[in-house]
Amino acid sequence: MELSEGIYGRRSVRSYLPERVPRDVLDTLIDAGRWAPSAGCAQPWAFVVVDEPVQIQRLKSIAPGMFSEPAFVIAVCAERQAAVQRMGPQGETLALMDVCMAAQNISLAAYAAGLGTCIIRSFHQRAAAVLLGCPDGVVPELLIAGGRPDRIPRAPNRRALDQIRHFNRWGQK
Amino acid sequence: MELSEGIYGRRSVRSYLPERVPRDVLDTLIDAGRWAPSAGCAQPWAFVVVDEPVQIQRLKSIAPGMFSEPAFVIAVCAERQAAVQRMGPQGETLALMDVCMAAQNISLAAYAAGLGTCIIRSFHQRAAAVLLGCPDGVVPELLIAGGRPDRIPRAPNRRALDQIRHFNRWGQK
Repeated sequence: MELSEGIYGRRSVRSYLPERVPRDVLDTLIDAGRWAPSAGCAQPWAFVVVDEPVQIQRLKSIAPGMFSEPAFVIAVCAERQAAVQRMGPQGETLALMDVCMAAQNISLAAYAAGLGTCIIRSFHQRAAAVLLGCPDGVVPELLIAGGRPDRIPRAPNRRALDQIRHFNRWGQK
Repeated sequence: MELSEGIYGRRSVRSYLPERVPRDVLDTLIDAGRWAPSAGCAQPWAFVVVDEPVQIQRLKSIAPGMFSEPAFVIAVCAERQAAVQRMGPQGETLALMDVCMAAQNISLAAYAAGLGTCIIRSFHQRAAAVLLGCPDGVVPELLIAGGRPDRIPRAPNRRALDQIRHFNRWGQK
């Protein structure tokens, strides 16, 4: 798939077919995630790939943002404590930013693999950490629900380029 | 360019040729950014594209993380105040996460356009906001320096997949 097709064609998909996604395919998504940039190339991330139906249901019970029945959920975690030790207090924010870029790589790679995904922040982070058995200092920051798409929504409108892009100083076009 | 080549081939480039990058090319980067996902599709971002040498130098003076002489700098801004009004206190974090995904789209699109970029957080956000004339409540969260690459660094090592990926519960392979 062309990169531009990935960027423009990816939708947030919330409706999935009841088909398992093979683990080697899921690994290609994580592989794409770990090639994201990170502050100081510290790679302060970990990924818990959830594909057991029971564990997915448990996650759903603490994630009001998760609709429908995903075939998998990738919990994208930040090694927050290690990041703070390495970079000081701002490490927490830096690690959060890094995992978001990894999540975007995962979304794009999933789309190229014929999968639909939806990035979710609306979940109970502390409960997810317990459920996934994350060690202290490792925090699930995002859940990426996914599967073979059942229904791909139309592209939501985008704000016009002229409204959001300025040259050199705010307001200059 | 293939999506996978974009994800795996993109490097953080810190050394650029002294060539201007046409504005229509810069616009394709912003266009890629605005197709990133965002919480509630709120698109809480704005982009100040800096390509005037004087303005680039001013940014450099407040950005210890910016080396060399980029041909352009894209200030990726979060509409923080609007996000908080829309989503409550967590709006600030959500907007930060959204702009990071937009930044990753921009980095990938730049690579596909033959450009090198480096995402920078090490800068004085308040000073950048003043310099760029951002309205109240709009905060530059990242600077993306870029240009035609002079030297493309080798890929830094990545943490092994087995070290960062778990199945269903931390520690399960």
